Amino acid sequence: MSPAAPAQRLTIIGVGLIGGSLARALRREYPALEIIGCGRHLPNLERARELGVIDRYETDPARSVRGADMVVVAAPVGATGPIFAAIAGHLADGAVITDVGSTKGNIVDAARRNLGERLPDFVPGHPIAGTERSGVEASFAELFQGCRVILTPLPETHRPAVERVSALWRHAGARVSEMDVRHHDEVLAATSHLPHLLAYALVDTLARMDDSEEIFDYAAGGFRDFTRIASSDPALWRDICIANRDAMLNMVQRFTDNLSAVTEALQHTDGDSLMKVFAHAKEVRDRFAARGKTRSPE
Amino acid sequence: MSPAAPAQRLTIIGVGLIGGSLARALRREYPALEIIGCGRHLPNLERARELGVIDRYETDPARSVRGADMVVVAAPVGATGPIFAAIAGHLADGAVITDVGSTKGNIVDAARRNLGERLPDFVPGHPIAGTERSGVEASFAELFQGCRVILTPLPETHRPAVERVSALWRHAGARVSEMDVRHHDEVLAATSHLPHLLAYALVDTLARMDDSEEIFDYAAGGFRDFTRIASSDPALWRDICIANRDAMLNMVQRFTDNLSAVTEALQHTDGDSLMKVFAHAKEVRDRFAARGKTRSPE
Repeated sequence: MSPAAPAQRLTIIGVGLIGGSLARALRREYPALEIIGCGRHLPNLERARELGVIDRYETDPARSVRGADMVVVAAPVGATGPIFAAIAGHLADGAVITDVGSTKGNIVDAARRNLGERLPDFVPGHPIAGTERSGVEASFAELFQGCRVILTPLPETHRPAVERVSALWRHAGARVSEMDVRHHDEVLAATSHLPHLLAYALVDTLARMDDSEEIFDYAAGGFRDFTRIASSDPALWRDICIANRDAMLNMVQRFTDNLSAVTEALQHTDGDSLMKVFAHAKEVRDRFAARGKTRSPE
Repeated sequence: MSPAAPAQRLTIIGVGLIGGSLARALRREYPALEIIGCGRHLPNLERARELGVIDRYETDPARSVRGADMVVVAAPVGATGPIFAAIAGHLADGAVITDVGSTKGNIVDAARRNLGERLPDFVPGHPIAGTERSGVEASFAELFQGCRVILTPLPETHRPAVERVSALWRHAGARVSEMDVRHHDEVLAATSHLPHLLAYALVDTLARMDDSEEIFDYAAGGFRDFTRIASSDPALWRDICIANRDAMLNMVQRFTDNLSAVTEALQHTDGDSLMKVFAHAKEVRDRFAARGKTRSPE
């Protein structure tokens, strides 16, 4: 038996991989939940309705939130500020707002600038899930099963609002925890944003070589896995990198310092130093891999 | 109906993931083929015989090659030179020797130094296959299905020897091609050795951070794929990096130059430059991914 529905009328602004998957997950558990989609691209909204992901749609954010008791902004990070500004004056009493942005400092700034007196009803959120694909066609109800969702409430945030957003994600199958905004951005720079930057930079480096066609011809499974994230949406990741610039630059510096040390060891044919780094990395990575489950979307 | 067996008696020196998988693949197609394993660790050889991967074993390389018409050296790169020296005077007339090393320049040097008059019977080879696991327990007959094997024959190499080794790998399911030794090492530095170095360096970097436990706690599927190769055997990869040092250092330089440019763009919030790199990488990676098949061993 399912517990009480986390919302009666849910508006999802941005019906892509994340927004669509959330809708699918909640709809499966709560068939009576009304889900309104909002976006700028009519064909995508039409498709979302055809797929049964949403019940109906609006293209105007202000209209889309009317009467909704829960609003999830799942649009690209760069579009979130203007959406906040558009909906702030049209939210129902008691409505709670959350978002799914991969960076939180910039989203919190945008919320402070644009949500006015509704700021305490806003709960910044980040589901750590996704594949290298995007769009509602790629969405699926199981995306958040067992995934972590980090909420980064502000000092002003109403506690009941945090509880409601937490329940929303738990209903979608996620494990929810809370974190300080700044710390969230540092942790994600390390485990997600830096790896994406490295994967993009590596593929771009190889693609610029004279014999790049041949090079890719002889690449094997390890390379495929290593570069999978370089197939992610480039505009999305440009925005994330810029939004989390300071934490990113800090992480790039740490990484390049370490890579320089490893390279110097290689230059001096210093096998012991290489072994130390490689063995440490393997030990840590094996421990990490044993914790979670496998997810190979491709 | 299978074509003629590629050998009557096959000696595999080093019965691990690669040697074991080759034995399994050939045995499946040629039950009459006699396979002799050789190695330094008795328990591993016992296990290989129990598993039916080999018929019998020897711990002395010289003894193991007696009467064999095909010898595959699948030992760690660093052990290959001494093995060549040990077997050179004991090979049967007409026997062909090959290896499976991930780097070829150093193996060719070792062959020139140690194989003496049998050098023309040696065909340097490299099956581009493997997982982050190792040992005969991890071996499986399908490992080479659809994989590429690169042979790097020398000017001295007898052509019939090349044909026999090529047939051996085709019988195991691989696609075989030939390449110049030096070019092989450059291509592999780009697609395999550099990615391993980057993955090891990244995991080591994160593991050195104060909040590393928490960091790995919030890592998702993308990070898991990106770092899978950091779970590879560290001693093996130390040896590969050192064996292919010059090509590696060249590739690290190309990569860090590109990463510096990307980082500078980020420093200047230059979204257009980031977008150019990311979009180019995605396009190339998507094209590459569409070619091959998926292989997710974990």
